[in-house]
Amino acid sequence: MSKKFEVIAVTGLPEFGSGDNLGEAILSRLQEMGFTLEDGDIIVVSQKVVSKVEGRMVRLSDVKPSERAITLSKITGKDPRFVELVLRESSQIEVAVKGHLIVTTKSGITCANAGIDVSNVEGSGETVLLLPVNADISAKKIREYIAAKSGKRIGVLISDTHGRTLREGQINVAIGISGLKPFKDYRGTADMKGYVLRVKMINVADELASAAELVMGQATERTPVAVIRGLDELIGEHEGSGELNMPQERWLFKPVGITGDGV
Amino acid sequence: MSKKFEVIAVTGLPEFGSGDNLGEAILSRLQEMGFTLEDGDIIVVSQKVVSKVEGRMVRLSDVKPSERAITLSKITGKDPRFVELVLRESSQIEVAVKGHLIVTTKSGITCANAGIDVSNVEGSGETVLLLPVNADISAKKIREYIAAKSGKRIGVLISDTHGRTLREGQINVAIGISGLKPFKDYRGTADMKGYVLRVKMINVADELASAAELVMGQATERTPVAVIRGLDELIGEHEGSGELNMPQERWLFKPVGITGDGV
Repeated sequence: MSKKFEVIAVTGLPEFGSGDNLGEAILSRLQEMGFTLEDGDIIVVSQKVVSKVEGRMVRLSDVKPSERAITLSKITGKDPRFVELVLRESSQIEVAVKGHLIVTTKSGITCANAGIDVSNVEGSGETVLLLPVNADISAKKIREYIAAKSGKRIGVLISDTHGRTLREGQINVAIGISGLKPFKDYRGTADMKGYVLRVKMINVADELASAAELVMGQATERTPVAVIRGLDELIGEHEGSGELNMPQERWLFKPVGITGDGV
Repeated sequence: MSKKFEVIAVTGLPEFGSGDNLGEAILSRLQEMGFTLEDGDIIVVSQKVVSKVEGRMVRLSDVKPSERAITLSKITGKDPRFVELVLRESSQIEVAVKGHLIVTTKSGITCANAGIDVSNVEGSGETVLLLPVNADISAKKIREYIAAKSGKRIGVLISDTHGRTLREGQINVAIGISGLKPFKDYRGTADMKGYVLRVKMINVADELASAAELVMGQATERTPVAVIRGLDELIGEHEGSGELNMPQERWLFKPVGITGDGV
């Protein structure tokens, strides 16, 4: 039989709030859908619902912007209180230009606005949603809960939507991993003709996140969870997504830095 | 019923050579597999087999490197004849450092080595494979052939494996498109709470390529074609992948350029 896999949207999940048990909600919804988890299933969860259950909502009215945030707010055109939150989540500013603020977060992810989101949040515009403090731990918690209750060997991936340097449009990538191998490693592997491959390591974690996005959507059709079935070979003891971030000293494209009025 | 899609590897295809009809080979193999195409199916084809049928193999012994190629060869550590071919395929060199040569091709794709490949090519090491001259036209030819023979409304995507600036590992992206919408455009769309979305445009073409990679593989298990079923909404009149390349003036990370001995 030919190799294949399926990506199934987990629809009809409730609105989540701080303290909710995501693993329980996913399992319960899968049961209602008549869907039984199997060994090898990979559950992809949108960052946003993870942040919500982890209580990462912040009211902008509670945030007092620093001088630095005010300066960067003028350059980028973003709300100074929002910029202040981005700074608190960041270890380094990579790009601050009109319309863009790209940073490396304290978790080591380089992305726009430290991944802080204003959409699909109660009271949006005034309430924003920070990334999970550590999405790898979030993934592990969900995996351990679902694995214990279902008795199945599964993987969990937390996804977020990122822009890229050279490509238009955003794609989903992995920001948290538990029980999954993030790479298919071909280093030193010979091809069908016995030659070493040009391709060294495939980032299957990001590919899984992108595959799941195709059923998850972004707007009102938004579904925050998907199950990927048929890629059992990617399940493994591996924990953590840190290796997916390229160390800065190896970047071959350098951030433009802070440029604009008032620098 | 919940939204879902499937990705099916088209295994057992023959070795391809210059002049072969890819569309015919894919259809014939699908028939042997007992797989009937449906309206809405998306066929993802690896760049490599497209290049092979288009006769894009070049023997390095037939290539005389220019002075510029020899200089860049010293910097990058790559074969000067290989570098010469990269230069011929390129409109601009973005990065030339030890171990890396990143260019923008004449088709406008920024990637390593102008996408030239030495693996899985007959006589590899001495024979290399250039990208299709225009992968959008390649995609259109395959789509038109298969659509005419099957009577189905399908999309075709040519994929290649690319590295990214800030992420470890490579992923598959789209370098040729026919009959597919490359983006899901959310610009101006309101979210469930009525706020405008952070996410503006999803590059579904790259996400489809990445999803397909998960069954296509890279080494001896390599399968150059996959069918994606269940994402009919992405089928459309659209031709071409040029919009997927971000125009250089909008890059927020700049290539390091040419750095090394002999510059």
